[in-house]
Amino acid sequence: MSALGLTHKILKDHLVEPAELPAPGELIKIKIDEAFTQDATGTMCMLQLEAMGVDKVKPLAVNFVDHSMLQSGFRNPDDHQYLRTVAAKLGIIFSPPGTGICHFTNMENFVKPGMTGVGADSHTVNAGGAGAIFMGAGGYDVALAMATGMYTMPMPKVTKVNLTGQLAKNCMAMDVILKMLEIVSVKGGKGIIFEYAGPGVKTLSLTERATITNMGAEMGATTSIFPSDENTKAFLESRGRGGDYTELSADEGASYDAEINVNLSEIEPLIAIYPSPGNVEKVKDHAGTKIHQVCIGSCTNSSFENIATFAESLKGKRVKVDTLLYPGSRSVAMQLADAGYISMMFNSGVRIMENGCGACIGQGGSPPSEGITLRTFNRNFPKRSGTDDAQCHLISPLVAAASALTGEITVPEAKDIAINVIPPVIDTDSFIMPDKADKSEGVVRGPNIMALPEFSPLPDVVKGEVLLKTGDNISTDDIQPAGVFLPLRSNVKEYAMQATYNQVDSTFAERAVAHRDAGGEGFIIGAENYGQGSSREHAALCPRWLGIRAVIVKSFARIHVANLVNFGIVPMTFKNPADYDKIKQGDTVSFDATNLAGDLFLEVNGEKLPLEPAFDKDMIPTLKLGGALAQFKATYKG
Amino acid sequence: MSALGLTHKILKDHLVEPAELPAPGELIKIKIDEAFTQDATGTMCMLQLEAMGVDKVKPLAVNFVDHSMLQSGFRNPDDHQYLRTVAAKLGIIFSPPGTGICHFTNMENFVKPGMTGVGADSHTVNAGGAGAIFMGAGGYDVALAMATGMYTMPMPKVTKVNLTGQLAKNCMAMDVILKMLEIVSVKGGKGIIFEYAGPGVKTLSLTERATITNMGAEMGATTSIFPSDENTKAFLESRGRGGDYTELSADEGASYDAEINVNLSEIEPLIAIYPSPGNVEKVKDHAGTKIHQVCIGSCTNSSFENIATFAESLKGKRVKVDTLLYPGSRSVAMQLADAGYISMMFNSGVRIMENGCGACIGQGGSPPSEGITLRTFNRNFPKRSGTDDAQCHLISPLVAAASALTGEITVPEAKDIAINVIPPVIDTDSFIMPDKADKSEGVVRGPNIMALPEFSPLPDVVKGEVLLKTGDNISTDDIQPAGVFLPLRSNVKEYAMQATYNQVDSTFAERAVAHRDAGGEGFIIGAENYGQGSSREHAALCPRWLGIRAVIVKSFARIHVANLVNFGIVPMTFKNPADYDKIKQGDTVSFDATNLAGDLFLEVNGEKLPLEPAFDKDMIPTLKLGGALAQFKATYKG
Repeated sequence: MSALGLTHKILKDHLVEPAELPAPGELIKIKIDEAFTQDATGTMCMLQLEAMGVDKVKPLAVNFVDHSMLQSGFRNPDDHQYLRTVAAKLGIIFSPPGTGICHFTNMENFVKPGMTGVGADSHTVNAGGAGAIFMGAGGYDVALAMATGMYTMPMPKVTKVNLTGQLAKNCMAMDVILKMLEIVSVKGGKGIIFEYAGPGVKTLSLTERATITNMGAEMGATTSIFPSDENTKAFLESRGRGGDYTELSADEGASYDAEINVNLSEIEPLIAIYPSPGNVEKVKDHAGTKIHQVCIGSCTNSSFENIATFAESLKGKRVKVDTLLYPGSRSVAMQLADAGYISMMFNSGVRIMENGCGACIGQGGSPPSEGITLRTFNRNFPKRSGTDDAQCHLISPLVAAASALTGEITVPEAKDIAINVIPPVIDTDSFIMPDKADKSEGVVRGPNIMALPEFSPLPDVVKGEVLLKTGDNISTDDIQPAGVFLPLRSNVKEYAMQATYNQVDSTFAERAVAHRDAGGEGFIIGAENYGQGSSREHAALCPRWLGIRAVIVKSFARIHVANLVNFGIVPMTFKNPADYDKIKQGDTVSFDATNLAGDLFLEVNGEKLPLEPAFDKDMIPTLKLGGALAQFKATYKG
Repeated sequence: MSALGLTHKILKDHLVEPAELPAPGELIKIKIDEAFTQDATGTMCMLQLEAMGVDKVKPLAVNFVDHSMLQSGFRNPDDHQYLRTVAAKLGIIFSPPGTGICHFTNMENFVKPGMTGVGADSHTVNAGGAGAIFMGAGGYDVALAMATGMYTMPMPKVTKVNLTGQLAKNCMAMDVILKMLEIVSVKGGKGIIFEYAGPGVKTLSLTERATITNMGAEMGATTSIFPSDENTKAFLESRGRGGDYTELSADEGASYDAEINVNLSEIEPLIAIYPSPGNVEKVKDHAGTKIHQVCIGSCTNSSFENIATFAESLKGKRVKVDTLLYPGSRSVAMQLADAGYISMMFNSGVRIMENGCGACIGQGGSPPSEGITLRTFNRNFPKRSGTDDAQCHLISPLVAAASALTGEITVPEAKDIAINVIPPVIDTDSFIMPDKADKSEGVVRGPNIMALPEFSPLPDVVKGEVLLKTGDNISTDDIQPAGVFLPLRSNVKEYAMQATYNQVDSTFAERAVAHRDAGGEGFIIGAENYGQGSSREHAALCPRWLGIRAVIVKSFARIHVANLVNFGIVPMTFKNPADYDKIKQGDTVSFDATNLAGDLFLEVNGEKLPLEPAFDKDMIPTLKLGGALAQFKATYKG
């Protein structure tokens, strides 16, 4: 047997189909050891899991609450309550608000070297720091992984990142991943797993490795992974989890699809300049720029070591600008408190916020208008901070500290910083384990949480009114606007009634529902490039709730087709694009759906217009049953 | 000279006019030693101070930031920035976000026995715990106090509260003020200063006294006051302020307008049941009711002793419901951290939020739908929690702890609770003192902060169009809706254009501005009881900005008249109410304003309708100059 890289070892170990690892790009189905959600994506994931008829999840599963914790109104606490009670029902661990950021808390408590996992958050890849293969996935895919313990994905390419040397005293793991972003770019990681190796690996602690794998998401990578070695062992042992340790590394002579060399010794303090994590420049080239705010934390940089280093850098001095700390977890916050760092940071004028994602995902902590904010976070996209005209740059905790003290972008001094290392505080009591959860309440759904409806099977003859006729380039934002409507994401009815197509035709939702309630099947007629843009599932789910059963267009944006099929809407194109002109909004149309694999025609005004299916043949059973959830339910054995 | 009560001593000591303390109800002008704002009221207060032409405040003045600290978007941080930079310009101390709740931080750092003060917040009365007379006031009054060092108010009645006995081990200061609310009711304190006295006083620490004076606001009291004694001295000394101490108490034999006796020994744990702080009942009568949330903190109950007692009550156990702590100040948070209580509360599962008002004023921490939340706060009005159908009950920190542990309303055990008392941490470095502030930026106004415009003097002949004709009972909510428009309160233009009368006639603002810009003076014609409801100043300020110069109605709600005059709008009534019918919206009307003390007529359609002034004669100079700000500016000597 030939020498294997670490990635291939773990994938092989979890491979369900095909029998051997195939060439990159081909689909593989792997066993999943853990699947988790966070609260922003978790409610829809859980609603799908319930709609699938699942009564108990298969792999280790966790519902974390870390995103929406401001609780300005009933929606956040209702979401938390639903995630807690549905977790108790389905055998999922619940991590309440205040316990910590999902990726960080997951690493502290659940990730073991050699595991596979999916999470409904792009930074799930963080776990690669502990020698595990974890990937971000959509809500439906995570629900499916929870239901089946399996996950299907394209076989990735593997790029070896050969680390040599050692970081300078004013550099941190954040500078390593910024260097990687400089080399690879924000799109260069697509379809790739980055496998770190080489003599530089042992110079990085587990949490430093996690900083690096975390922001692999910003390169668009499938995931990243480090070997599991003495440093991994030390981390696990410090958390009372020595038994979870396995040594893991690539076989000698393993081959890779590509290789990158990074000499840690050559890295300087780096900064990702607004508005992209890929705009990597040297801090020294921006030194002296006035700033308005500094934020520390996020799943990328909120380990005890990161924050203790930040605190020691401030010791005995006062920050000059508004400086906000978001610890990664209750465990980290407790360790910081016990080691004296909470007091030390208070003394330096730092604002200590609740452990969680906070300002990183725009949940509070917005900078002032036209402000410049330096953040140890992972993304600096426009408007993400909540202040449209502010600029956010990404930096290491050392650059954060040096700059907070001067009020301008500042290169940190290269000097030893001793931190007061004390044993971590184990905080497993924060979790509500499903076997100990109070199930007496049942699943509690606040008024903004609506169980997903069951959609009926496809009738043999689909007949109804053309409820909307659109022009070219309709985006999923046109179909289902996000923005102010996003808090309605767990309430299909309200999201549909208030938002679906409301910017195109404000009468659409009401007309559609009336037509549906009168027994009609709704049609949308579109033109070129229908469904472009974001891949949001609600752009299919909400129209389906409004009674849309078929979308017939000149051409589709690819990803929207899969969503339409998943929710039981038949996507088809005109064989003769000119036929688009033969249909008016308000026309009654129909098609025979008995044989979706055969010839398809749209009957309108006594004429039969030939259609092409936009779906693959293997999607027909899904369409016939009324969508993926119905199909899953029909075949689910528990 | 006759024996004086403590209240009368301090008022006499600060009296400017008249020469002697008059009978209750008559106006007195007193010297003010301190005036402060918080961020929710402070921006409008500062805008008025700037518009007055003030260049330096007279008394000790502080701009605290404690209310709107979530920073979900640019408005909060822009407000903070404005308050900071305008403070530097005007000689005001700035207390940045994270420093603490105004009343609590004020007590720790600035309040001295015998002082007088006004603050733009109803709980300013908190300072009475330290033997000072502090009162809540409107933004304009606080601005005036800052400008002049004076404050005019009706001479209060004084009620002596004779405290005897000692609290049971399961009772706290919160139970004393709840008892007072039971006795006095939520309206019974109007026009009264409650002066605490008797042998029970010495059993209460300074912060316990402040809990009691704080919620005097809920009785509608002018303020409340405790003597200054050894406990006051101990507090000041512990904060390095021994030099600020003076002993102060009532003369023996002083007489009072009324007297109340409260035997502390007879008090049981109490609870103010939703939806009023006046619905006081015994905790034991509600024991066993399931709860969903517990919140600790607010200006009422967030001293070190309060929170340490709460923490000790949880020690080694886990809370059963979502439990949120908001420390009163950075100083308290530091003392809690140093004494090990932050770790202890984390261990018990408490969520530790930023020091500030937080959930008490609906800035985060909302309970779930239909949830029951127990709070150590001062108000439990409907919707204040942010969740419309939730119920909030007010309780002491001991009841909070006992209930958090069981998940239901629970009477705390009567037992000794030893707390780890360590010296307070002095946090004066958090303040930005005006002499050390960076003034190079100038006053920074984000896009939502607009300097108040200068309004022109009243022309001799006021002529223009009737821009609106209304029916009876127009409220200030009809004139100037709050709710979703409240974030515009610092931006007169936007608030006027988007909200003024928009629910009555959505074309009003645009029509008014066009008429104003064409040189016309705008008129509003109203019917009975015009301007009822909330006393908000914007209901005069915004119409004035839109060019309204006169409001002529059948009858006015009293308080609105003063606001109209303050912003230069002439309020008049019809001598013959039937003349109301002779005017149509769109009519051009005029009146001769040369002699506002003489006979007044409205000329319309060739007819002269006799008018009555709704303003007092002494308001004429204000009206002539264009409003109170213009008048102040014209006479201000610096």
